[in-house]
Amino acid sequence: MENLTVSQLTKDARFDGLLLVRSAERKLDKNNRAYVDINLGDRTGEINGKIWNWSDTQDTPEPGIAVEVHGIVQEYNGRLQFRIESIRAVRDTGAVDMSLLVPGAPRASSEMLAEMEEVVGSFRSAKLRALTEEMLRMAGDRLSYYPAAQRMHHAEYGGLLHHTTDMLHLAEGVLKVYPWLNRDLLLAGVILHDLGKLEEMASDRFGNVADYTRDGQLMGHLVRGVVNLNRAAEKTGVRGEMLALLEHMLLSHHGEAEYGSPKPPMFPEAEALHWIDMMDSRLNTMKGTEDKTPAGAFSEKVFSLDRRVYHPRYTDEAE
Amino acid sequence: MENLTVSQLTKDARFDGLLLVRSAERKLDKNNRAYVDINLGDRTGEINGKIWNWSDTQDTPEPGIAVEVHGIVQEYNGRLQFRIESIRAVRDTGAVDMSLLVPGAPRASSEMLAEMEEVVGSFRSAKLRALTEEMLRMAGDRLSYYPAAQRMHHAEYGGLLHHTTDMLHLAEGVLKVYPWLNRDLLLAGVILHDLGKLEEMASDRFGNVADYTRDGQLMGHLVRGVVNLNRAAEKTGVRGEMLALLEHMLLSHHGEAEYGSPKPPMFPEAEALHWIDMMDSRLNTMKGTEDKTPAGAFSEKVFSLDRRVYHPRYTDEAE
Amino acid sequence: MENLTVSQLTKDARFDGLLLVRSAERKLDKNNRAYVDINLGDRTGEINGKIWNWSDTQDTPEPGIAVEVHGIVQEYNGRLQFRIESIRAVRDTGAVDMSLLVPGAPRASSEMLAEMEEVVGSFRSAKLRALTEEMLRMAGDRLSYYPAAQRMHHAEYGGLLHHTTDMLHLAEGVLKVYPWLNRDLLLAGVILHDLGKLEEMASDRFGNVADYTRDGQLMGHLVRGVVNLNRAAEKTGVRGEMLALLEHMLLSHHGEAEYGSPKPPMFPEAEALHWIDMMDSRLNTMKGTEDKTPAGAFSEKVFSLDRRVYHPRYTDEAE
Amino acid sequence: MENLTVSQLTKDARFDGLLLVRSAERKLDKNNRAYVDINLGDRTGEINGKIWNWSDTQDTPEPGIAVEVHGIVQEYNGRLQFRIESIRAVRDTGAVDMSLLVPGAPRASSEMLAEMEEVVGSFRSAKLRALTEEMLRMAGDRLSYYPAAQRMHHAEYGGLLHHTTDMLHLAEGVLKVYPWLNRDLLLAGVILHDLGKLEEMASDRFGNVADYTRDGQLMGHLVRGVVNLNRAAEKTGVRGEMLALLEHMLLSHHGEAEYGSPKPPMFPEAEALHWIDMMDSRLNTMKGTEDKTPAGAFSEKVFSLDRRVYHPRYTDEAE
Amino acid sequence: MENLTVSQLTKDARFDGLLLVRSAERKLDKNNRAYVDINLGDRTGEINGKIWNWSDTQDTPEPGIAVEVHGIVQEYNGRLQFRIESIRAVRDTGAVDMSLLVPGAPRASSEMLAEMEEVVGSFRSAKLRALTEEMLRMAGDRLSYYPAAQRMHHAEYGGLLHHTTDMLHLAEGVLKVYPWLNRDLLLAGVILHDLGKLEEMASDRFGNVADYTRDGQLMGHLVRGVVNLNRAAEKTGVRGEMLALLEHMLLSHHGEAEYGSPKPPMFPEAEALHWIDMMDSRLNTMKGTEDKTPAGAFSEKVFSLDRRVYHPRYTDEAE
Amino acid sequence: MENLTVSQLTKDARFDGLLLVRSAERKLDKNNRAYVDINLGDRTGEINGKIWNWSDTQDTPEPGIAVEVHGIVQEYNGRLQFRIESIRAVRDTGAVDMSLLVPGAPRASSEMLAEMEEVVGSFRSAKLRALTEEMLRMAGDRLSYYPAAQRMHHAEYGGLLHHTTDMLHLAEGVLKVYPWLNRDLLLAGVILHDLGKLEEMASDRFGNVADYTRDGQLMGHLVRGVVNLNRAAEKTGVRGEMLALLEHMLLSHHGEAEYGSPKPPMFPEAEALHWIDMMDSRLNTMKGTEDKTPAGAFSEKVFSLDRRVYHPRYTDEAE
Repeated sequence: MENLTVSQLTKDARFDGLLLVRSAERKLDKNNRAYVDINLGDRTGEINGKIWNWSDTQDTPEPGIAVEVHGIVQEYNGRLQFRIESIRAVRDTGAVDMSLLVPGAPRASSEMLAEMEEVVGSFRSAKLRALTEEMLRMAGDRLSYYPAAQRMHHAEYGGLLHHTTDMLHLAEGVLKVYPWLNRDLLLAGVILHDLGKLEEMASDRFGNVADYTRDGQLMGHLVRGVVNLNRAAEKTGVRGEMLALLEHMLLSHHGEAEYGSPKPPMFPEAEALHWIDMMDSRLNTMKGTEDKTPAGAFSEKVFSLDRRVYHPRYTDEAE
Repeated sequence: MENLTVSQLTKDARFDGLLLVRSAERKLDKNNRAYVDINLGDRTGEINGKIWNWSDTQDTPEPGIAVEVHGIVQEYNGRLQFRIESIRAVRDTGAVDMSLLVPGAPRASSEMLAEMEEVVGSFRSAKLRALTEEMLRMAGDRLSYYPAAQRMHHAEYGGLLHHTTDMLHLAEGVLKVYPWLNRDLLLAGVILHDLGKLEEMASDRFGNVADYTRDGQLMGHLVRGVVNLNRAAEKTGVRGEMLALLEHMLLSHHGEAEYGSPKPPMFPEAEALHWIDMMDSRLNTMKGTEDKTPAGAFSEKVFSLDRRVYHPRYTDEAE
Repeated sequence: MENLTVSQLTKDARFDGLLLVRSAERKLDKNNRAYVDINLGDRTGEINGKIWNWSDTQDTPEPGIAVEVHGIVQEYNGRLQFRIESIRAVRDTGAVDMSLLVPGAPRASSEMLAEMEEVVGSFRSAKLRALTEEMLRMAGDRLSYYPAAQRMHHAEYGGLLHHTTDMLHLAEGVLKVYPWLNRDLLLAGVILHDLGKLEEMASDRFGNVADYTRDGQLMGHLVRGVVNLNRAAEKTGVRGEMLALLEHMLLSHHGEAEYGSPKPPMFPEAEALHWIDMMDSRLNTMKGTEDKTPAGAFSEKVFSLDRRVYHPRYTDEAE
Repeated sequence: MENLTVSQLTKDARFDGLLLVRSAERKLDKNNRAYVDINLGDRTGEINGKIWNWSDTQDTPEPGIAVEVHGIVQEYNGRLQFRIESIRAVRDTGAVDMSLLVPGAPRASSEMLAEMEEVVGSFRSAKLRALTEEMLRMAGDRLSYYPAAQRMHHAEYGGLLHHTTDMLHLAEGVLKVYPWLNRDLLLAGVILHDLGKLEEMASDRFGNVADYTRDGQLMGHLVRGVVNLNRAAEKTGVRGEMLALLEHMLLSHHGEAEYGSPKPPMFPEAEALHWIDMMDSRLNTMKGTEDKTPAGAFSEKVFSLDRRVYHPRYTDEAE
Repeated sequence: MENLTVSQLTKDARFDGLLLVRSAERKLDKNNRAYVDINLGDRTGEINGKIWNWSDTQDTPEPGIAVEVHGIVQEYNGRLQFRIESIRAVRDTGAVDMSLLVPGAPRASSEMLAEMEEVVGSFRSAKLRALTEEMLRMAGDRLSYYPAAQRMHHAEYGGLLHHTTDMLHLAEGVLKVYPWLNRDLLLAGVILHDLGKLEEMASDRFGNVADYTRDGQLMGHLVRGVVNLNRAAEKTGVRGEMLALLEHMLLSHHGEAEYGSPKPPMFPEAEALHWIDMMDSRLNTMKGTEDKTPAGAFSEKVFSLDRRVYHPRYTDEAE
Repeated sequence: MENLTVSQLTKDARFDGLLLVRSAERKLDKNNRAYVDINLGDRTGEINGKIWNWSDTQDTPEPGIAVEVHGIVQEYNGRLQFRIESIRAVRDTGAVDMSLLVPGAPRASSEMLAEMEEVVGSFRSAKLRALTEEMLRMAGDRLSYYPAAQRMHHAEYGGLLHHTTDMLHLAEGVLKVYPWLNRDLLLAGVILHDLGKLEEMASDRFGNVADYTRDGQLMGHLVRGVVNLNRAAEKTGVRGEMLALLEHMLLSHHGEAEYGSPKPPMFPEAEALHWIDMMDSRLNTMKGTEDKTPAGAFSEKVFSLDRRVYHPRYTDEAE
């Protein structure tokens, strides 16, 4: 019998298989006996579980570790809860296919990176090419696993690349309709716009973000991106309008002060970048919500959208 | 010597040539003598002028008429003003090339209409095809000349088609990136989203909007579009989810209550329609502003954007 | 000993009598034993209860069914909870006086309907009479039981009629003060303003709304009302200003974009309709809140009012 | 030939008759010659005028004085301007019918005052009767001529009484629909709610407000009303809940912090007072706007309403 | 072994010592057995506790009473909970050092009061001196124990004096930088600005606020302050601009309508008062939050600040 | 007879003396004759003037040049206008006392700079000292003449130093009241907070700002300050928390997103910096407004404050 994925679990289901520990904490029950409150996941989702009667001498399972678990799914206060009967860390980690245990982008990071580098290589503006290459160099291999957000959209292994390359494809479509836009500038803006997130969030190598960093909270990824861009400019000796335009695009891509941009987009490429970013993050959020909602039904209210989402049946037959 | 266009006029320039009367009013000066306050335009812009010493027996020039004018450009209170020395209506209107006198879309209306109809013909959903065809039939030949707005964006002969077909091209790009979107629904939404404007604004056959209609002001084009769609549905016998989805897309395409949509977009195609509309109207406004602003300079504050726009030089050489 | 109503229940009270099942769900307790989580009500209110040790073979009670229950009221986390000792569906439904089990308007629906029809019959404007009569015909007998809202105000059997006829009475008072208002228009607006709710919410025949409909969520009752009005207009052949005025009144009666009206009221009768609607819905909400708050005390914060409500003693003697 | 009223004046009309000086200022023209910039009015409206070639030894006309003027109406920058050929103060003021020269309420102040006092006399609550009587005593004869506002609504001789008595009539209608409201409290609130305006604005005896007072600007009429009410309470020895309720009604009658009420209405009578006030001030503004707008047309945007107003034709025949 | 303070309690800690009962309520557990839900505190904080198996004949402990308790600290749903094993009221209250059981200002009330009176004594303006002295007289000995707020900032015995005297010190600094400010007026404003809180909140003699008063909720401390000031003015015979200025300062010190001030500060001393008040209340809140947050970490989101607070390490060595 | 200052000019006054050209433009009058539209100023203010009949061969006066002018003050459209009869550039600029012709800070720049450097020298934190010194070095001698704003507050020669040193004095007062604040951090924040303005605005050496720079408009002084701080950090090798804290203070000192800060102040020193900045800029604006308003009167509405300002008489005698 093939195993269920986390998204397939329902009340009363048994589960016997591999999961990833996302977080775990030792607690005391009402009778002062230790138990472990644990979050376990695979690439399709996450479930909370309890391990009762945890001996005082046992170590609490560590986040990021694959475990073999056996137990049954119950419901508590209207939410599923995994009652774990046994749990065992997998020693031979080489034998674990991590791609089954963490959500990930649909394409390989190497492929997405290569595509991005090819785009940069095609820039006619030497300044934009130099700045973008230096920024990618500074980003280094973190690019291959960082998600685009902690939750909300593209919260997955390689999610930042996923988000960025989808935006590149959208930008190509936009450039066809408005050939007067400066191609290099728009594409450089797309590639660089979220690189500040590499320092705003602390991600492990599976694209899992435990928290925002101190500097991320004190500064945000927009301003961090601008600061880094200036470092790249100093190193490559780039100055002048092209640098100012790119700085402005990083700073203004959230569109409004209310959403973190101290300046609104003030030229067409900055404006286009903002809408392309909105389009991709919103459609990713909507798709994720639809995937969890039966056709013909409404989701709960989605916090980041401030509305419920309807999953249409999309057929002429639907009443 | 070739004639100047209105956008090329500067202080002290002479102008001798054809212009279109946009509006004109007979007034009295301080000494109680009649003069005519007139707005004249060609496809590049509009200028205010005065015809002093207007005889009481002369008729005031009528809007929409081509006139041959002679005069000199002056400045008054920081604005250009055309001091008209002589003005004469062109009798032989067949000899006038109207395309030089009114702003117009870059492509022929017939070509844009044909493209739109081809898209509709390709719909797999019989319901969406029927609804869209009926709505286009109801729109009739007004489509060929209506602008997309009175001012702001695509305020030109054929502007509504211009706006709609550019959005269709954007939508094609979006569909490539998100192949899970329902193509028919998104494209039907694009084609229908602004058809309510045909009744919201009163346009003459040159795409010039003198004012909003009574019903336009009391109801707006979003709700008017939904009402018309229901008429089309009754006629074609279409019911069920597909109709409800299209209704919602028309109603929600401004995105927020503050901008006139009583419901926010609640499924991915509605969300995509909103961003595609924003992208096209904003970039059209930005391009129009840039065209009037010298490279390397900022425009005045643009009311509909609530910001100034910068016209970049876009070269590596720019300081 | 006469039985308590739900609003009279307090901690430690026993209850033995008839209640209506509003909703019920079978769940598992911590020890994996089935119980039923149930909401029961009468015309004065609603209480949550638990039926422990529910056998696996028993059917969960159905919403809308009258039951005879015995049990005791306890408190859990600061809220009353009905611990049900026995429950039995009433077979002989003819013997049940439903008016005791559901909240209802203070007057009979037939009486309110007759009053409304008399008002319509008195209209001097043939167009408004025709439109209003057709709209009432389309509403049919749903009018007799629909509430005016799911919660908040007039959430009761016949509540929509209750709300509408109270507004008619308010309007009569307003017309006396401002005799220059168009009587037919204002009263037609009152009668039609909320009819779109018949399709926005799904009510059972007791005026209980389980949920909003798909089309209600995608479109809202304001726009649905305008669409229906256009259907009535097509059927009755009414066109022109009178139709446009009524459309606008339906669309603008929430007063501001923020509250769902894409257009604000733009003539006196539309403005008057808005305030009459606010007056009646707010005073109904306030009265309902006062009824649950002891004199001399403040209620909890009422969500729809965004404030606490004070219940005055209203006597010269009160300190 | 009967004389025109100010509201009937159009371009090129002659006027020879009596007007009231509202304000006047001596100025210099470009050639350094004195002229008088003057605002003149009658009960239907106000017009700006110029008296050229004003001799240096002449006194500037004083506001509040009736004058006999002769001149012609011109248009300047799209506005009517009265070119005054001769102007002469009326010595025998007894011969002037002031009611033709200032806008006024439709009923006599004495009649409105008597009605208000009768209402107070009918109060069952001795406390509310004492407080209201004392407040009216403090208001004194200013009540007979004060307007309800400087512009906007009820800006007329006796306007405050006009506004208050119309609200009393509205309140009577409201009390019929909700007999559970405390009559004395609601009516006392209506009578007292705007009395603070007597100190917020400085009105002459014709109901013309030149400006707000210093204390009016620093404190506003809501808080001033509460302070005065406390003075009345001290004098009459009233304390306790009734006083607190009235204080709250005065303070909260603008409904929201944004409109000057630091507290929202927190019991039904306070809520009702707010809506009655909105109803009367808004309908008065709308009526005034309609009166200046031809049937079938839209007004300019009305500042205090933030919208244009439509003047309907109100007939079945209107297209 | 010295006893722990409440702020030092952690999971599994035992506590045996004196605490103050802040609130207590008798409840029933699932098995219908009585227990007491109690909040206990000392000067460093507050903890919730349960006393299981409470006999039906025992009285529930009264708020404001010192008790000797024994028990153990547990964790329930992520919060600490004190499981009380025994509890006994202290009879000999003279033996209890209350300053250990309630939070208090860092200085003695008598000292702060004396300082404030010395400031008033130094006023050159006889009017401001008379008004301020009378207001302090009306405040009486409540000043010595009232807190400045129920929670948020200076919620402690003598907190109102603490807040006011710290503001006086800030004001002295401000007066040095802007010697053109009117010293008497600014300092009088500081002393009087929050006196209305004495009637807005109901505090016991330990500075513990159980709730807001009826009049506090219906009127607020700003307007109450203005009303009291007018009483003081009547008593002392003070009138004119000085009174109007002080009234305005009391009314406007929250700065914006949104925060309860119907008028914004309109002269420099009123503006200065607002910022001094913001400075002191915000820094007190921030300090309190930092004290509960480890150095190098972020607090939870603080409701009244709408943000998380970072507790810096403040050393050159910190990474 | 001593000469008038610009602030003393009234209608009909003659002026014969030295003024500074602030801006000047050649224009054509209605009869197509050239004239010069010029703004002239001294340290007390600015006045607009016209030089009629400007010969075509004359050069337009250059901004920044001292001129000797003769003429008379007239009023046009309610504003004063200087009718210039003769104007002559001063050749011997050495003879001109510029301090009379431009508004300036009350203290010498050298003195304010020295004070600021002394503060920096007293820092205990080597990191903060190094960063602040390097930032001041980068600012260079621009500090001595830059204003703090183009208009609004401290728009004067040396205004940035004036604003900063007054804030240092306020900060000293704040540090006395809250000795637990980190002194070095707060004072470093004060000194650096507005240095980004040196690149945001283009000032001439008299502190006159003609316009914002391109980079100023695209980025703003907050983010520019953070970028510069990072350059200083790279140069001085400073890293770690101290740098992050200073970055955050620069970024958050406007307090809210709406006013340009993408992050709100998140620790006490950042919060204190924000209020000190508000206090100083607001009081400077208020003082400037009062200086132009007669005692006992209200100013016009001040745009940056969104309110009118009252200039009190401040005496016990004032009614």
